[in-house]
Amino acid sequence: MTTHAIIERIAAIVGPQGLLTDPRDLEPYVVDWRGIYRGASPAVVRPASTGQVAAVVELCAESGTPLVPQGGNTGMCGASVPHATGREIVLSLARMNRVLEVDALNNTMTVEAGCVLANIQQAAAEADRFFPLSLGAEGSCQIGGNLSTNAGGVNVLRYGNTRDLVLGLEVVLPDGRIWNGLRGLRKDNTGYDLKHLFIGAEGTLGVITAAILKLYPRPAATATTWTAVPHPEAALEFLSLLRRHCGDRVTAFELVSRNCLDLVLHHIPGARDPLPKAHDWYVLAELSDSHPGHALRRELEVALEAAIENALVLDAVIAENEAQSRALWRMRESIPEAARAEADMLYRHDIAVAVSKIPEFIREARSALVGRFPGVNIICFGHLGDGNLHYNAFVPGRKRNDAAAREARDVTVVVYDIVQRHHGSFSAEHGIGLAKLDEMRRYKSPVEIELMLTLKHALDPRGIMNPGKVLSGDG
Amino acid sequence: MTTHAIIERIAAIVGPQGLLTDPRDLEPYVVDWRGIYRGASPAVVRPASTGQVAAVVELCAESGTPLVPQGGNTGMCGASVPHATGREIVLSLARMNRVLEVDALNNTMTVEAGCVLANIQQAAAEADRFFPLSLGAEGSCQIGGNLSTNAGGVNVLRYGNTRDLVLGLEVVLPDGRIWNGLRGLRKDNTGYDLKHLFIGAEGTLGVITAAILKLYPRPAATATTWTAVPHPEAALEFLSLLRRHCGDRVTAFELVSRNCLDLVLHHIPGARDPLPKAHDWYVLAELSDSHPGHALRRELEVALEAAIENALVLDAVIAENEAQSRALWRMRESIPEAARAEADMLYRHDIAVAVSKIPEFIREARSALVGRFPGVNIICFGHLGDGNLHYNAFVPGRKRNDAAAREARDVTVVVYDIVQRHHGSFSAEHGIGLAKLDEMRRYKSPVEIELMLTLKHALDPRGIMNPGKVLSGDG
Repeated sequence: MTTHAIIERIAAIVGPQGLLTDPRDLEPYVVDWRGIYRGASPAVVRPASTGQVAAVVELCAESGTPLVPQGGNTGMCGASVPHATGREIVLSLARMNRVLEVDALNNTMTVEAGCVLANIQQAAAEADRFFPLSLGAEGSCQIGGNLSTNAGGVNVLRYGNTRDLVLGLEVVLPDGRIWNGLRGLRKDNTGYDLKHLFIGAEGTLGVITAAILKLYPRPAATATTWTAVPHPEAALEFLSLLRRHCGDRVTAFELVSRNCLDLVLHHIPGARDPLPKAHDWYVLAELSDSHPGHALRRELEVALEAAIENALVLDAVIAENEAQSRALWRMRESIPEAARAEADMLYRHDIAVAVSKIPEFIREARSALVGRFPGVNIICFGHLGDGNLHYNAFVPGRKRNDAAAREARDVTVVVYDIVQRHHGSFSAEHGIGLAKLDEMRRYKSPVEIELMLTLKHALDPRGIMNPGKVLSGDG
Repeated sequence: MTTHAIIERIAAIVGPQGLLTDPRDLEPYVVDWRGIYRGASPAVVRPASTGQVAAVVELCAESGTPLVPQGGNTGMCGASVPHATGREIVLSLARMNRVLEVDALNNTMTVEAGCVLANIQQAAAEADRFFPLSLGAEGSCQIGGNLSTNAGGVNVLRYGNTRDLVLGLEVVLPDGRIWNGLRGLRKDNTGYDLKHLFIGAEGTLGVITAAILKLYPRPAATATTWTAVPHPEAALEFLSLLRRHCGDRVTAFELVSRNCLDLVLHHIPGARDPLPKAHDWYVLAELSDSHPGHALRRELEVALEAAIENALVLDAVIAENEAQSRALWRMRESIPEAARAEADMLYRHDIAVAVSKIPEFIREARSALVGRFPGVNIICFGHLGDGNLHYNAFVPGRKRNDAAAREARDVTVVVYDIVQRHHGSFSAEHGIGLAKLDEMRRYKSPVEIELMLTLKHALDPRGIMNPGKVLSGDG
């Protein structure tokens, strides 16, 4: 079947409002949001229902037409855009954006895959509940994409990743059949737990069309503190202490290096050092509770007193109100922007090691980079409580418009090799997509790659589902 | 290769202490702990290391010899014992019982699959941490079995199932290769999350040999209350209220019918009604916190006052100390024993529906059973907070030694059909094994069964890994 014939048949399935073919309309769908991964597609399909998705996928399976499932196209690794070959059809879930049901008593919510994350948060709040997934792109990312990439976000320490926030899925399989696993049960041991195949698979094993999400009590009180710590080891002990005092109420625990703070103070208008003296390391920590009132703040004060007594914390400020809390968070959240203003060519690494290995990793990576790249500037910050650091670096003189600098892997290989030695992950949150196919080959064991290929071939024997993403050699 | 030749080669791999062939020695391994499922085996293999497991599995893969992986043999569905054909070799993990590492800062613990659960709890406590999995069999069940069955236990409401307590696995695949996924990372998006295939697979996709488990802060305070509630709907509203007041501190929330309490008072020596008047329904609820002191008890009192004001709770007693708390729990934990003393032939159902559907399910199931089986006695209790009920019944006159009564499915089909109509699960905790193969055929969708078979065939093409369990027709 020619591409033209296939598109005609797709048009018959989804109708004119479900199909884009004019190249000007295709533009936002074929390039990622940062303009790094640019592909081409004969058409963008925008189904209105699971039935339409299934019919389209079935047609593509029969004709061997490759598909690229796409949510909000806010990913970091190019998983959601087609290759430049122009043979892959983009399958956008954007029109399937409804909240289907909110069951407050059961603490669940059923949503279509194209639902925007911010709308999901809103619907939960309206039901006096809380959906904990929160990330920078929440105004435009869609839950199907969050599920496909197992998005992390700021609340992982307390609530887990997206994988931990889901009870069931509805998925269109690569042969077009619909698997309806939408059961809002917390306990169900009737066979293999199939949803976990599709979560984090970046669209390579099937198209997620709906999900049942978990809801939580609304946080009614928060207590935020910006602290100075002598070194990362102290930060870790401080985390243990905070957990001992405050248990599950510890919701965020972010590490920030002096260097990061300097960049923010330098580049971000209105930014002010929360503490009077300069320190080498900082922790931004937050507690939250479903119970309102001041007990939480007192709990934090008691914990800080103990931390200061034990020289784990050198100085601290507690936010007096919501506005102050947001100002402290803005220090942390502005770091990427400040880094971009400072560094023309920033090498970014979204890595994870066991929490207990973070101090060792920081030392070894610094030592290795400084040894190899004189004048290297290390920008180190992140979710210490999860073991996930944004460990970025720039080398003076390297510019983004210099292809050699842009494509250089020398800095990255040094960092990832150290991560590997510590049994860590070279992609804690962002996934693989196109961006990290080389790393998959370099760092994953052959057994692991073969297991993944076995699953891929078993579920998608024709290789139509987002080919060339996550795994290479899956054609 | 003859069976004899295979066993000789296995003996060369594991040595004499790793192999049992005398039928008297085999007895505890070939029959389940309740004596319901009796099989036969030519030998029981007890490897001492992952390397030995791998070599044995490789040999079995080459020769097409079926294996039955076994932990503590405490399961409820016969998944861990061989069939009566006598062709399957039992592979016991019992000798691989070491705690390999405890990393308190990272809140993880690495264990071999044959580690007894109670020993794991103990090792966590010694490191000032808490491993939340707790069930009746914890003195003899092994973590590999808990993982393979995705065991639930009493703390699911707060901490989740076994699946939620694991960061990584080491698994010997059906071809004998070792997949080492022992990374203690909370964030790792480098490809498919393979561990979830093996968790809950009841030994049909590979042999779990080690795991990295999550640790939590030790509970330092608990507050337990036995309450009377007017009906299950009120119990649900009470749960919402308790969650609003106490958030994550709600650790257990158990529903008990009047009938269950009567049975306990009648059959269990020393049992006393905690409340002065008789009521129709009860809830046993518990809060716990890592922070010691009396704040938790006060929090519970405030919540109970609100619940009583709203007529959700009619009467309540709070345990004054540990001994009183245990006495209240004994009321709940003795129900199975009391039921067995009363009923000769008890039909047991471990079901789950959405929490919000529990009251409707209870009404419909009662109505259907009473209509069909005059004099039926319903014993309904369980983990209301998870939506998981032990919904049991006995019909007067039916006796266990009557084969027809024992094999009758009439009561069970009525209950499960209602569960199905509510999109629930016919096996919330206990798994499938041999016991529920019929239910798999009756209640799981064809797409779901085929997906599972696809995975099974892809990972275990020779069908040697615990054949005939979970899925039929997988030969």
